[in-house]
Amino acid sequence: MSDRDLSFRPLHGLPEVRAGDDLAPLVLAALGRAGLTLADGDVIAITQKIVSKSEGRIRHLAAVTPSAQALELAAITRKDPRLVELILAESHAVVRTRPDTIIVEHRLGLVLANAGIDRSNVEGGEDVVLLLPKDPDASARRLRAAFEAAAGVRLGVLITDSVGRAWRRGTVGIALGTAGVTPFEDLRGRRDRHGRALQVSEIAPADSLAAAAVLVMGEAAEATPVVLIRGAAGGGSDVPATAVLRPRAGDLFR
Amino acid sequence: MSDRDLSFRPLHGLPEVRAGDDLAPLVLAALGRAGLTLADGDVIAITQKIVSKSEGRIRHLAAVTPSAQALELAAITRKDPRLVELILAESHAVVRTRPDTIIVEHRLGLVLANAGIDRSNVEGGEDVVLLLPKDPDASARRLRAAFEAAAGVRLGVLITDSVGRAWRRGTVGIALGTAGVTPFEDLRGRRDRHGRALQVSEIAPADSLAAAAVLVMGEAAEATPVVLIRGAAGGGSDVPATAVLRPRAGDLFR
Repeated sequence: MSDRDLSFRPLHGLPEVRAGDDLAPLVLAALGRAGLTLADGDVIAITQKIVSKSEGRIRHLAAVTPSAQALELAAITRKDPRLVELILAESHAVVRTRPDTIIVEHRLGLVLANAGIDRSNVEGGEDVVLLLPKDPDASARRLRAAFEAAAGVRLGVLITDSVGRAWRRGTVGIALGTAGVTPFEDLRGRRDRHGRALQVSEIAPADSLAAAAVLVMGEAAEATPVVLIRGAAGGGSDVPATAVLRPRAGDLFR
Repeated sequence: MSDRDLSFRPLHGLPEVRAGDDLAPLVLAALGRAGLTLADGDVIAITQKIVSKSEGRIRHLAAVTPSAQALELAAITRKDPRLVELILAESHAVVRTRPDTIIVEHRLGLVLANAGIDRSNVEGGEDVVLLLPKDPDASARRLRAAFEAAAGVRLGVLITDSVGRAWRRGTVGIALGTAGVTPFEDLRGRRDRHGRALQVSEIAPADSLAAAAVLVMGEAAEATPVVLIRGAAGGGSDVPATAVLRPRAGDLFR
């Protein structure tokens, strides 16, 4: 990683993505318009929002009937009971609640607020929300295969999301789905420059890349949903992003 | 952020840093050898390890006498009681313990393992450990002033550390000290591309930059302690990295 620049280039001009759209040709067209040719080792970071949209993960609150549990939790958290119903349906367990916040263990295993359900950058008004992709690692693998077939190179795909942290304000990007990008790496056995065994034994490369990629994507009107990452040695074997989830047995903060 | 590349370049060839060394000339010399000229908006990311070393934050375990509390906690966690003594002395409170792990609220306010005390990449054998810098934000401001005076440009300085996360494996880089780099940004009031108010209201730019910078620095023998970040709009006002710490009243996981 340390012999060349690591760079993040936002891709502009993608059209609004709708259910059923094939994302890979849209991204390849945007790359072409930007004069970029995919190369071995590239990583294409894509926000989960457009993956979810393409997979039809939009829900209309008007079509949701809240359960008794959702009504109860909505009263505590002052949230729309129909949104709470969707949050519960997407989750294994509620981890913490307070007014305006429901932190859950998502069905994918992530601990995050509101089950990752998003209302920003979704067409259709306040009634429309977006769930996370059904299986982000599978989506990443599909996209990787499509990009590699089109470009004839080995590369990685990183599907990003933004999450809060327990003790720090502000969200940061994380790897929600990965193909050809390393979610975590065990450095045990490696030595430092003085020959001592490393203390930091595991790092999280995909999350570290996602943090900068999501910063480059931005959040507001000028947001760009795709970032081309160069210098990150993408294109290795497929390890799912879920591999970075801390096993419940090692969780001190549940 | 989204109109140009964001890039991270590792700086090689810094000498081993010792107590009393003036870091700014060492970094400027390495930049010169790499043929790089500092420009407006640059951000210089520096690992806390070399800042700490230059500030004489090395401690010899042989000189530490553990307290009764340190002996007790060392028995529970199976750690060196003298190291535990240093961890306690650097901390406001112990947050969680288990064998091999002590998670504390550091005196700087961060929640992290072992008070950030490090044994990797420190000269002198197993007896020598490294504390975090005394005041990383002040160190960042001093370095910023030195770099700006030498280069005649406006730039930012980011002092990085690596920390674990509550629910995800592997460490990621964070901003331990900042000058001219935004620790967090409140986007409330901004609108998405469909004119709806943004849901993600706070982002953490300095942490997001630190994540990729630390990935580029690496952890092992070939580690580079300084990374030049371009495209991140450094050089604004000085907001301390401590601004990103979640206030205790909003902490659901203590």
